[in-house]
Amino acid sequence: MSTTRPPLAVFRKIILPELEKGLQEALAPWKEHPATLLAEMVAHHFGWKAENGKPGKRVRPLVLLLVHEAAGGWWHQALPAAVAVELVHNFSLIHDDIQDQSRTRRGRPTVWSLWGPAQAINAGDALFAQAFAVLAPLQETFGPARSLEAVQVLARACVALVQGQVLDLSFEVRDRVTVEDYLTMIRGKTAALLAAAADIGALLTGVEETRRRAFREFGEALGLAFQVWDDYLGVWGDPEQTGKSTADDLVAGKKTLPVLYGLSQPESAFARRWRQGSISPEEAPEVARLLAETGAQDYTREQARRFTQQALDALQAAQPLNVPYEALRSLTEELLGRAS
Amino acid sequence: MSTTRPPLAVFRKIILPELEKGLQEALAPWKEHPATLLAEMVAHHFGWKAENGKPGKRVRPLVLLLVHEAAGGWWHQALPAAVAVELVHNFSLIHDDIQDQSRTRRGRPTVWSLWGPAQAINAGDALFAQAFAVLAPLQETFGPARSLEAVQVLARACVALVQGQVLDLSFEVRDRVTVEDYLTMIRGKTAALLAAAADIGALLTGVEETRRRAFREFGEALGLAFQVWDDYLGVWGDPEQTGKSTADDLVAGKKTLPVLYGLSQPESAFARRWRQGSISPEEAPEVARLLAETGAQDYTREQARRFTQQALDALQAAQPLNVPYEALRSLTEELLGRAS
Repeated sequence: MSTTRPPLAVFRKIILPELEKGLQEALAPWKEHPATLLAEMVAHHFGWKAENGKPGKRVRPLVLLLVHEAAGGWWHQALPAAVAVELVHNFSLIHDDIQDQSRTRRGRPTVWSLWGPAQAINAGDALFAQAFAVLAPLQETFGPARSLEAVQVLARACVALVQGQVLDLSFEVRDRVTVEDYLTMIRGKTAALLAAAADIGALLTGVEETRRRAFREFGEALGLAFQVWDDYLGVWGDPEQTGKSTADDLVAGKKTLPVLYGLSQPESAFARRWRQGSISPEEAPEVARLLAETGAQDYTREQARRFTQQALDALQAAQPLNVPYEALRSLTEELLGRAS
Repeated sequence: MSTTRPPLAVFRKIILPELEKGLQEALAPWKEHPATLLAEMVAHHFGWKAENGKPGKRVRPLVLLLVHEAAGGWWHQALPAAVAVELVHNFSLIHDDIQDQSRTRRGRPTVWSLWGPAQAINAGDALFAQAFAVLAPLQETFGPARSLEAVQVLARACVALVQGQVLDLSFEVRDRVTVEDYLTMIRGKTAALLAAAADIGALLTGVEETRRRAFREFGEALGLAFQVWDDYLGVWGDPEQTGKSTADDLVAGKKTLPVLYGLSQPESAFARRWRQGSISPEEAPEVARLLAETGAQDYTREQARRFTQQALDALQAAQPLNVPYEALRSLTEELLGRAS
């Protein structure tokens, strides 16, 4: 590793093309099957065919592979697990878009908006199934016991992820949602898969239990920080940088962390406005200001900071190797510092 | 085993209550999670709360456990795998009902018709994930290598199942579908999971490759026979026994095997009528008669018979133990002879 270029940039440069290749290879057999529509749908979803295909951030597989290095492994050996985690993430995005009736993602039409919800359900299901199928080659490197453990960790994370999604959807139609309810929800919906990614990266090296647990805790706290910061940007992010309109989440009526904090003060100007019904894009900047007045902006920023610190503490407790540690720390700070 | 009662009846009596208990135990933790809606949805789906809860036939887990016995195992040890296979089957039913917009199943409202498609997608996803989670305890009995192999076989079957579902949905909007297209479709949609059930039942015992392959072939052919016979009953089944109205599949406009056979004679009275548009329940018996005139009834019956014979031949080639062999043979004949 060069000392002049930061480790994260170097890792990204080496890892991301291999990961993309791994994803494409995992789904390549679908092109040979008569149900070619499946290959078409996922190639569109991953942006492999689009001119303006902007790939996702690949945070989960990066965390898995960097933790694997940090725990003494060689990232290339854990690649199938990283592919599996990214497949699961994308299964959940495709189903999520159906459930939220979102017509675009990363600036391109969603799978369901092009092929209808019925086939989009299939696209998600197939990625989900493939995630477990691609874990097979792990056993050649890590033996069957650790590979089976990886299957277990991933499967449990998927259950937790879906439970989070159940809660998220139920919040939309529920009157009273507390900040605690919300944290339970994102612990499933966002943090479970990141926790599993870190856990799998660690367990495959055979690292001792306490360090494995610390790596897992790092992943979970990182997931929470990530989601809370996402909520912050959804209200106070710079539209130029988020690529969304101002206070987009307020217009969508999403019960995110700052909103729930604001609503916990039922007499605040924000809460009174919220109860009056939906917010137009024109009104959104003013409502975002009302929300900030409740202290929600400081609170949300503080929570994101707290979870980030928790992540960094856990990471240090996991006694990571030096260079991947630097990369994981940069990734964490980047996710919190990010503007989009 | 008693010689006066047929083995299948005895196995059913012993196995089915344990299987039901296994299913309930696998999903019991969901009741403790804040997303209680998930537990509610699946309890409804499995008919655990309903007065008129008529359980499914549990064909896939029965095949898995009987093959396990037939290959020299003890069924009770393979129970987690049987639970997993039934969870996968039910995930696919729940998503299927959303995709087909079916409002009832086994005489009760479907999950999506009660809780909406968005949450029903979650119910299916959660069962899917749980299927892989419940395979864990297998390793205590069978070791990690065979358990991981079971994960692989199940995951690959899930991909094939979804590919079949993609084809099935695409047939609805496609003009020309051949009998061969159809067989490819049901090889995924119906046969893949039954093949996997037999395969897993066998592989867990460590039986030699050729016998394992024969058991798998048995499962696949059984699945094909099962689906073709289902198609037969969908047109010519006795409404009293199928619980559906006469020639239900014709009214629904489904491109099943007999319909595709009839359409392969574009000048037949049936094909001409089919092209004129949807068929009313009143007209259905007459259209079923026209379809029979093309030879489709004999053809479909003959195909079901052929796949059944294939299944029985493969079963014999697998050198099964005597008593479970009798049970599997009865099950096969029962599925073909069944009137509903």
